Amino acid sequence: MQPQIHAASVPVFKQMLGALSEVLAKAEAHATARNIEPAALLQARLFPDMFALVRQVQVACDFAAGVSARLAGAEVPSYEATEQSFADLQARIAKTLAFIEGLDAAQFAEAATREIVIRPGTPKERRFAGQAYLLHYGLPQFFFHVATAYGLMRHNGVEVGKKDYMGTY
Amino acid sequence: MQPQIHAASVPVFKQMLGALSEVLAKAEAHATARNIEPAALLQARLFPDMFALVRQVQVACDFAAGVSARLAGAEVPSYEATEQSFADLQARIAKTLAFIEGLDAAQFAEAATREIVIRPGTPKERRFAGQAYLLHYGLPQFFFHVATAYGLMRHNGVEVGKKDYMGTY
Repeated sequence: MQPQIHAASVPVFKQMLGALSEVLAKAEAHATARNIEPAALLQARLFPDMFALVRQVQVACDFAAGVSARLAGAEVPSYEATEQSFADLQARIAKTLAFIEGLDAAQFAEAATREIVIRPGTPKERRFAGQAYLLHYGLPQFFFHVATAYGLMRHNGVEVGKKDYMGTY
Repeated sequence: MQPQIHAASVPVFKQMLGALSEVLAKAEAHATARNIEPAALLQARLFPDMFALVRQVQVACDFAAGVSARLAGAEVPSYEATEQSFADLQARIAKTLAFIEGLDAAQFAEAATREIVIRPGTPKERRFAGQAYLLHYGLPQFFFHVATAYGLMRHNGVEVGKKDYMGTY
């Protein structure tokens, strides 16, 4: 009995990216209301060698799109990481949502056993069956960047709560 | 076709709690090496109204145990939140791992459709089928606390990386 890989990927990414979009909108409103330079939030980091907020959001989107595409056997979309503003990040999330919503659940029928290769041709190359790839790699990575983006905004005083992180479920 | 709810819960919690245990061990070693008072890390918060590190770890454990128990149709274990030290947190994680490893995968056979009620009898009561409960509530909550615990340690200078967060997969 194989898991419904589609159910455990696309709708989860949709929930969390939808929530992240709302949290980012509140962060932008917070910055505007307090005359905070948007970059003070967008370039904030929890530690100097961690990604800034902009990059956390980009990478969360990349995992949502990349994991979904690989499981569906579709080409992984490549988006340049040129976002500079809250509006740019909203567009990135919207583009990512449109991509994953455009995948047909039927494309995931064989996803549990589909072989997924990450970092191919490098010393860190790793092969997974699709189910293990999603549960033990894709979801942990995706949630890391979503939760860290949220934590960065909280750390910088944006007035949101766990409810905002969770989104609509 | 129902998902293998056991595969999407217990082994994922094991991976991430095992990793969290290692990160906490590195945090303790970091504190010892630099004569940092353990409480400076254990009571650290990203923002005053967020949980401190100790509580993030407790709640991550609570979600791992509670979500697994509910899906298995087992009684949710109740552990007091009395942890004060790194050793206490390691014991909490070990106790949680022992509990979830003690659940039989067969107990999860009907988990996808089992009715789960959270916050019963309160205005925020919510009913889920087991699959939606895991994918749209349990995993997002669990990963939130694991990633935030990690972020708190990174923010406080503990020298760990994404590899440590990811654990063995």
